[in-house]
Amino acid sequence: MRVIVPFDGQAPKTRLSPVLDYGERKEFARAMLRDVLSTVRAAGADPLVLSPSAVAIEDCSVCVDERPLSKAVNAQLRAATPAAAVVMADLPLLTERALERLLTSDGDVVLARGTGGGTNALVSRTEDFAVDYHENSYLDHLTAARDVDATLTEVDSYRLATDIDEPDDLAELLLHGDGRAADWLRDSGFRLSSSGGRSAVRRAAVAHESSR
Amino acid sequence: MRVIVPFDGQAPKTRLSPVLDYGERKEFARAMLRDVLSTVRAAGADPLVLSPSAVAIEDCSVCVDERPLSKAVNAQLRAATPAAAVVMADLPLLTERALERLLTSDGDVVLARGTGGGTNALVSRTEDFAVDYHENSYLDHLTAARDVDATLTEVDSYRLATDIDEPDDLAELLLHGDGRAADWLRDSGFRLSSSGGRSAVRRAAVAHESSR
Repeated sequence: MRVIVPFDGQAPKTRLSPVLDYGERKEFARAMLRDVLSTVRAAGADPLVLSPSAVAIEDCSVCVDERPLSKAVNAQLRAATPAAAVVMADLPLLTERALERLLTSDGDVVLARGTGGGTNALVSRTEDFAVDYHENSYLDHLTAARDVDATLTEVDSYRLATDIDEPDDLAELLLHGDGRAADWLRDSGFRLSSSGGRSAVRRAAVAHESSR
Repeated sequence: MRVIVPFDGQAPKTRLSPVLDYGERKEFARAMLRDVLSTVRAAGADPLVLSPSAVAIEDCSVCVDERPLSKAVNAQLRAATPAAAVVMADLPLLTERALERLLTSDGDVVLARGTGGGTNALVSRTEDFAVDYHENSYLDHLTAARDVDATLTEVDSYRLATDIDEPDDLAELLLHGDGRAADWLRDSGFRLSSSGGRSAVRRAAVAHESSR
């Protein structure tokens, strides 16, 4: 199945700016994307990076579409009938197994929620369904699927729900991640820290090497 | 299967104190517990509330054990052989289906992670495994299971991962909840609010009724 992976290499992960500078956010976003693409390939699916600006991704097709995200995704969904998936690029905890649960779930529309109300991944098997990404898009995507009488499945997955957007999310990646993005974080000095409740992260000074 | 549900009715949900006063936290914690117990029963399992102090729970067995949580849970796990589960009381998004995935997963030990490194639910089918709840207990429970050569399954579930501990968690409950705890929040004036990123909550004044 074609798996569309939206990725904005120019303005990546702005909500991580309290803990990562611009160059670091670019590197980290790229590491997360590579984790997702590896998982998509491991699951036997066919990734396509969808970017608003030119970007070079090793060993992966890229489609540049300057239109707003939802328009660009809908164009790709229509082009990829009878079925296509959309998986966000900031899901470095995604495993082959979690992705397979998404891709093999029955339904005209299959949705995976993100923390905070977003839609982190979906499958569409009907031309009648269109995406509209925004805050709380998940509830609106549920409604949109019902409005076109699509059969609907919701995938209950922590790994699909855990997009890495905010500093606290980094703790999830340090706890459960083992790919490039988790390695990048650890190499950059991030460690789990105890805060009396949930795990948070702290950053230690690291000796900078000439290249990672 | 016996499902042990630890519940502390005396000092509930202290991390919600920025948004709920003591009496409200008690009511809300009780509503979450009732949601969990309903789901356990709907799944055909046998709930036991485990509390450090006397507490009356409608239609549910209660065991009072003043010892620290892990000791009390381990005593119940040993008493409930050949298999028992532990499910936290602050999981109001739990559905019958998510619980059944936990209870029917193969393995001497089955673990469900919580946001921030905790262990929100588990099944033990071996007397060699003991719990030790603390921050980052999930990683230590993985190690403990391996140390006793238990076969291990990790359940990947957003609904099991989403414990309601902190104010931002309330948004998850408003987004995806439909039980007593979600109703309690809505009746208490909580609404989703847009913050430019993930959904948060705001609280509106509500006309107080004499009883809920």
